[in-house]
Amino acid sequence: MSILLISKTKDLTPFRDALLALDNNLDVEIWPDISSKERVTYAVAWNQQNGLFSLFPNLNVISSLGAGVDHLIQDNSIPEHVEITRVVAPGLTEQMCDFVTMSVLNMIRDVKQYHLQQSQARWNVVNRTPKNSLKAGVMGLGELGERTAIRLVSNGFRVSGWSRTKKSIDGVTTYSEEELDRFLADTNILICLLPLTSETTDILSLKVFKQLKKPAFLLNAARGEHLVEEDLLYALDMNLLEHAALDVFKNEPLPDSHPFWSREKITITPHIASVTDPHEIANLILDNYKRMLSRQELNNRVDRQKEY
Amino acid sequence: MSILLISKTKDLTPFRDALLALDNNLDVEIWPDISSKERVTYAVAWNQQNGLFSLFPNLNVISSLGAGVDHLIQDNSIPEHVEITRVVAPGLTEQMCDFVTMSVLNMIRDVKQYHLQQSQARWNVVNRTPKNSLKAGVMGLGELGERTAIRLVSNGFRVSGWSRTKKSIDGVTTYSEEELDRFLADTNILICLLPLTSETTDILSLKVFKQLKKPAFLLNAARGEHLVEEDLLYALDMNLLEHAALDVFKNEPLPDSHPFWSREKITITPHIASVTDPHEIANLILDNYKRMLSRQELNNRVDRQKEY
Repeated sequence: MSILLISKTKDLTPFRDALLALDNNLDVEIWPDISSKERVTYAVAWNQQNGLFSLFPNLNVISSLGAGVDHLIQDNSIPEHVEITRVVAPGLTEQMCDFVTMSVLNMIRDVKQYHLQQSQARWNVVNRTPKNSLKAGVMGLGELGERTAIRLVSNGFRVSGWSRTKKSIDGVTTYSEEELDRFLADTNILICLLPLTSETTDILSLKVFKQLKKPAFLLNAARGEHLVEEDLLYALDMNLLEHAALDVFKNEPLPDSHPFWSREKITITPHIASVTDPHEIANLILDNYKRMLSRQELNNRVDRQKEY
Repeated sequence: MSILLISKTKDLTPFRDALLALDNNLDVEIWPDISSKERVTYAVAWNQQNGLFSLFPNLNVISSLGAGVDHLIQDNSIPEHVEITRVVAPGLTEQMCDFVTMSVLNMIRDVKQYHLQQSQARWNVVNRTPKNSLKAGVMGLGELGERTAIRLVSNGFRVSGWSRTKKSIDGVTTYSEEELDRFLADTNILICLLPLTSETTDILSLKVFKQLKKPAFLLNAARGEHLVEEDLLYALDMNLLEHAALDVFKNEPLPDSHPFWSREKITITPHIASVTDPHEIANLILDNYKRMLSRQELNNRVDRQKEY
């Protein structure tokens, strides 16, 4: 029996080494260098080549290498009986809380503008939007979203949250799926931490930007496919949004010629909100692998109907 | 009796208007447009012209317009019997907590580098210093320092603090005046929120930078005079410091030709960490003015011996 690591974009060697460091007897292989398709029972995948999974007749479990599983939901080669799991790692959550706090403060305090002014040796105080006049709204209240909302509260923000099933979180005004309009009308700083599903694709659209309380800001730290890119450019042009911070894009790396790069009102980071630590991930994967072997219930199972 | 507002750098009209909005019967004047020197009993000063205060024979109280009082301590024209007070405003404290959290996260996650890369349409992940490998150390545990230390703890930082008299703060390792060496050896991210006194001038020196745990970072949000500028440049050149975020400078505005502007490892902001809101300040000033009139004890009195 072997664990197979698959990705077309990520160097998987550190993950293999971290697994072997935990248990030297594990049989861990990296696609396409495998000894036997029959031996693969557990796969770990991130942005894999689509259509591979039907090759492994004894595959039982596929784990995402991160919190998102859209790359697995969209892969039709995964047999129905195969379980999908994702990684819920405290280190990933902590990084996301930091990233959102930092990005929101940077937007409302115009830090990008100050960096630009520094490059011009220019001393100029930019008008600040007072924090207490703004409300932050988190879309998606899963592990990442809920923790992030709580972190924003402890940073003195007024916070609202929107999720498919209504949640109850101390200090956060929560809205359910059908209350999207009310959520948006109660939100200045829109923070997308949704899973990417057929229902959430293109959710960050002009219609949504128009409904936000003004002044409005956008932070997308989920998936590029959540955002209608031309709607964002239009909303910035029309001053419907003050600023957008984007960590994820439809095409990554973002192509050189993309209009986002040169926009003053857009802050771009190269998908670094939350970066997996191989050692932390290896522990979680090994735990679930052992659960599979001993036929215990797996951690962080994905509902393939809900798509997350 | 009149309240006199004095500053050579700040437009005081919004502060006068805010005071009059609270009480239309107040007599508020802005130096040098005053009707009578004898009528001045209460002065509010920020970066005032030195040597003025002996002109007002009936002056009882001088309030700083902010948390710092170094501009008053250094003014020899203030008669001994005149009380000095400062402003402790929740809004100022909140802004400082935000600024420090934001600046520290920006430094350890290299946000300035990402902004630079965006201007070059460059997609490149910068190596991050993991937060849990770093400890933040706050110098000065007055109102601003204590609240900031607590905010950093709630953002998941390990935090130490140093103050003249040892404080006890939940979750913070505290050190007293004579334990500076131990504090520095326990600190990666040095955050200066000290009052400017004869003892703290030039405290941010090469000797201190050398003692910090590596990798080391510096944030100065107190006064420019705390920092030995050439020592900072040398420490950055020698890689004793990874990055410095500076909001305050010996000369403000920072002169065009200053070497700080063009340094990649320095982030400059134009003294915006915490900006006074005239309405919030007016309430605090009016309260102390009434206390003076009714001979009650004043709020936030300054000890002229301690210089803060």
